[in-house]
Amino acid sequence: MFESAEIGRCIDKDTFDAEAPALREALLEAQYELQQQGRFAVLILINGVEGAGKGETVKLLNEWMDPRLIQVSTFDQQTDEELARPSAWRYWRQLPPKGRIGVFFGNWYSQMLQGRVHKRIKNAVLDQAIDTTLGMERMLCDEGTLIFKFWFHLSKQHMKARLKALQDDPLHSWRISPLDWQQSKTYDKFVRVGERILRRTSRDYAPWYVVEGVDEYYRSLTVGRILLDGLQAALKAKSRPLPHPHSAPLTSSLGEHGLLDSLDMTQALDKDAYSEQLISEQARLSSLMRDKRMRRHSLIAVFEGNDAAGKGGAIRRVIGALDPRQYRIVPVAAPTEEERAQPYLWRFWRHIPARGKFTLFDRSWYGRVLVERVEGFCEPGDWLRAYGEINDFEEQLSEAGVVLVKFWLSIDQQTQLERFKAREQIPFKRFKITEDDWRNREKWPLYRDAVGDMVDRTSTEIAPWTLVEANDKRFARIKVLRTINEALEAAFDKH
Amino acid sequence: MFESAEIGRCIDKDTFDAEAPALREALLEAQYELQQQGRFAVLILINGVEGAGKGETVKLLNEWMDPRLIQVSTFDQQTDEELARPSAWRYWRQLPPKGRIGVFFGNWYSQMLQGRVHKRIKNAVLDQAIDTTLGMERMLCDEGTLIFKFWFHLSKQHMKARLKALQDDPLHSWRISPLDWQQSKTYDKFVRVGERILRRTSRDYAPWYVVEGVDEYYRSLTVGRILLDGLQAALKAKSRPLPHPHSAPLTSSLGEHGLLDSLDMTQALDKDAYSEQLISEQARLSSLMRDKRMRRHSLIAVFEGNDAAGKGGAIRRVIGALDPRQYRIVPVAAPTEEERAQPYLWRFWRHIPARGKFTLFDRSWYGRVLVERVEGFCEPGDWLRAYGEINDFEEQLSEAGVVLVKFWLSIDQQTQLERFKAREQIPFKRFKITEDDWRNREKWPLYRDAVGDMVDRTSTEIAPWTLVEANDKRFARIKVLRTINEALEAAFDKH
Repeated sequence: MFESAEIGRCIDKDTFDAEAPALREALLEAQYELQQQGRFAVLILINGVEGAGKGETVKLLNEWMDPRLIQVSTFDQQTDEELARPSAWRYWRQLPPKGRIGVFFGNWYSQMLQGRVHKRIKNAVLDQAIDTTLGMERMLCDEGTLIFKFWFHLSKQHMKARLKALQDDPLHSWRISPLDWQQSKTYDKFVRVGERILRRTSRDYAPWYVVEGVDEYYRSLTVGRILLDGLQAALKAKSRPLPHPHSAPLTSSLGEHGLLDSLDMTQALDKDAYSEQLISEQARLSSLMRDKRMRRHSLIAVFEGNDAAGKGGAIRRVIGALDPRQYRIVPVAAPTEEERAQPYLWRFWRHIPARGKFTLFDRSWYGRVLVERVEGFCEPGDWLRAYGEINDFEEQLSEAGVVLVKFWLSIDQQTQLERFKAREQIPFKRFKITEDDWRNREKWPLYRDAVGDMVDRTSTEIAPWTLVEANDKRFARIKVLRTINEALEAAFDKH
Repeated sequence: MFESAEIGRCIDKDTFDAEAPALREALLEAQYELQQQGRFAVLILINGVEGAGKGETVKLLNEWMDPRLIQVSTFDQQTDEELARPSAWRYWRQLPPKGRIGVFFGNWYSQMLQGRVHKRIKNAVLDQAIDTTLGMERMLCDEGTLIFKFWFHLSKQHMKARLKALQDDPLHSWRISPLDWQQSKTYDKFVRVGERILRRTSRDYAPWYVVEGVDEYYRSLTVGRILLDGLQAALKAKSRPLPHPHSAPLTSSLGEHGLLDSLDMTQALDKDAYSEQLISEQARLSSLMRDKRMRRHSLIAVFEGNDAAGKGGAIRRVIGALDPRQYRIVPVAAPTEEERAQPYLWRFWRHIPARGKFTLFDRSWYGRVLVERVEGFCEPGDWLRAYGEINDFEEQLSEAGVVLVKFWLSIDQQTQLERFKAREQIPFKRFKITEDDWRNREKWPLYRDAVGDMVDRTSTEIAPWTLVEANDKRFARIKVLRTINEALEAAFDKH
């Protein structure tokens, strides 16, 4: 969930200086239009890791927009008046009226995060709080509030560096936080609980935006653009509740340097190392599958990737040393008539393996947020809500002991071109290359964005994505096998 | 929540015979239209108290409709195949395809109900299961499934009589149930847990219908009409998700004998008894308000009722012996401009009393499901979702220690007419009667339905409605005072 906010995204000063003025003007204009229409309120929730620019962003919003129409609320210690009433009362009294923007800095999420990190509450009680929160947010949306939820993030290293810098800066040394961020464990716990909360509360009507906070320029432009896009969409919409104002999760589209671009695509394995490692990893998997602890688990591996990235080859290597009665490969193409008559996830549910078994999905339920999104095979509302539905689905799998491993096999455009051309030359591979493949290739940037959003929104602690650098097939196959083996071992150790 | 399903509703055979044939024909027609359109599936969930006609209703549906297009699934013991997979798998594999009707007899609700009644799970875990369920149902609706949730209910006495009758009937003596219904405690626990589940899972996109199961004719016609109305609305709708197919919770509109009609309106108090009881109840309240246990609670009393039912007079008697610093009366009329710029519940949240204090609402947040529904001041979608929002709201109050007492002051039409006329005669009361009052009077049946639905959907264990027979003002005032006192005492005893 935080992968793409740990890659050190930044924007140079020139780009920022070139883009900021127009963005500010457009934001101001949207703000006045908001006031004039008076049809809905805007609520901005600010959360995230210490030092990732939460306070700076609030300051920025006040500078960029008309501060008379923005009302910032911080929720620290409860006052006597607040303590004497239900806990939601403090938020209700600070809600922005229609036509205005309210910024909640420290909010219902901060409260539950701290409660869980300090172990004052357990997961079940956290989930109750999440449930209440979702009810509240849905109600606000139904009543015509546009909600933006920002999570400002930093990798642990970046956070430490930033805290150090802030400590040395007299302007910032007054900062206090209810958590002791100097402790490495605090960061780990905070991010783990944060991940659970984001996974469960990122809904189509109020999705989270994870923003990497290292670089001020990147952070500012990202927040500004997300706000502007959402505001403009909602100002144009005539119906209520505002129909998916967040036309797309945008984070990954900003800047040229996305998650996939941060991979080291030069990684490779020579033939000898490959042969040796292949044999040992295949043997390891075969033995794990026969381990008696496997009786309490089942295994699912999802293969997605660019066309010609080598999914089929990787799958063949995975099953190389397995008993065919133990596994099943499910190739996912266009749905059948029977499948179209059912809810989207039905055709995957039917192939969920029993305990002790292993299913490999060659393409998967992620089709909805990849090909269906890019090709327009479903409505934006459908793929937007799919992120949450998929997370729910995978959580149910995980709770039932299913070990779920998800791969995105990534190649660069040049490698794909070479492979396409090679396929056209080799007669027995010609069936693998079609007109569609060439067409898809033209949509490379759209797919790149879709993949970025997919990983941002569905790479969770219980079912993380593994990005596989697949320019070198040997490297990719070994990485896939090893990842599966490690996931199984981790699951076995847990119980 | 179950009040209106414990009044012994029945329909005579002649009425049934007159209405059933047309209903069956219309249902069959809707079923074929459903198949022809093939746009959505229908899922019927059957739950409720033992002996309330669950099985009989399933049988009936198969008789009335085309059984080839209905698929009934019962979920008893999990099979080996099911046990080896995530628990939701059994439901997914039985989902009806588009164009068909699926009946789930024993379903996700039965599972969590039994788990909680048998104390295998705690409330927090129950709430997690509820959360998962809501996610599932919302997803199904978004994917184009029309969900009907029926809860068949019986009062404890009726259940006992019915179980006895079934026992003596050789055709039914094979019945087995995972719960021991002969035990009175089982019923109590089951109904209490059921109430919690219904309160949290009755949502606008998939509301519960509580059906009283005593009388077969009533039960059959009720279920048939609810299905027909829902089906016809969804068949007409062109958009997806199906827009509030359940155009209105219907239960209370069926038959002439509703919840309000079951009140004994002849109850009265003579002057002496009244004076004596008034003084003692007022003293009791005054002392309770000064009790030191009151520091952990606050008190809210909601007054709704027919025009001229005596709300003002009752409120004056409640505060008669109280210190004015302890209470506040909030008269609720049309919202101010400031209030209109906020979510609906905002104007009530702002008046939530601090601990130790008492707020009396002269009309309340129930305006949305009463006057706003009847007069069309809001969209059907708005008042339909309000039931759930109000239950969430009141749950938050209750969890914070607020004691919430809700009164519907009920008078009959004749009494209202006499009071209206009297008001026109007495100069200092003339301000109390307006054109609006006469107009509202014409909408008597609509208000009666709205009140029935309101009580069905928002009378909860944590915040029950008290229906007050108010033809006799003295009787009403004492009942109000006594109810408040009893609620406070119960809350004090609990802690």
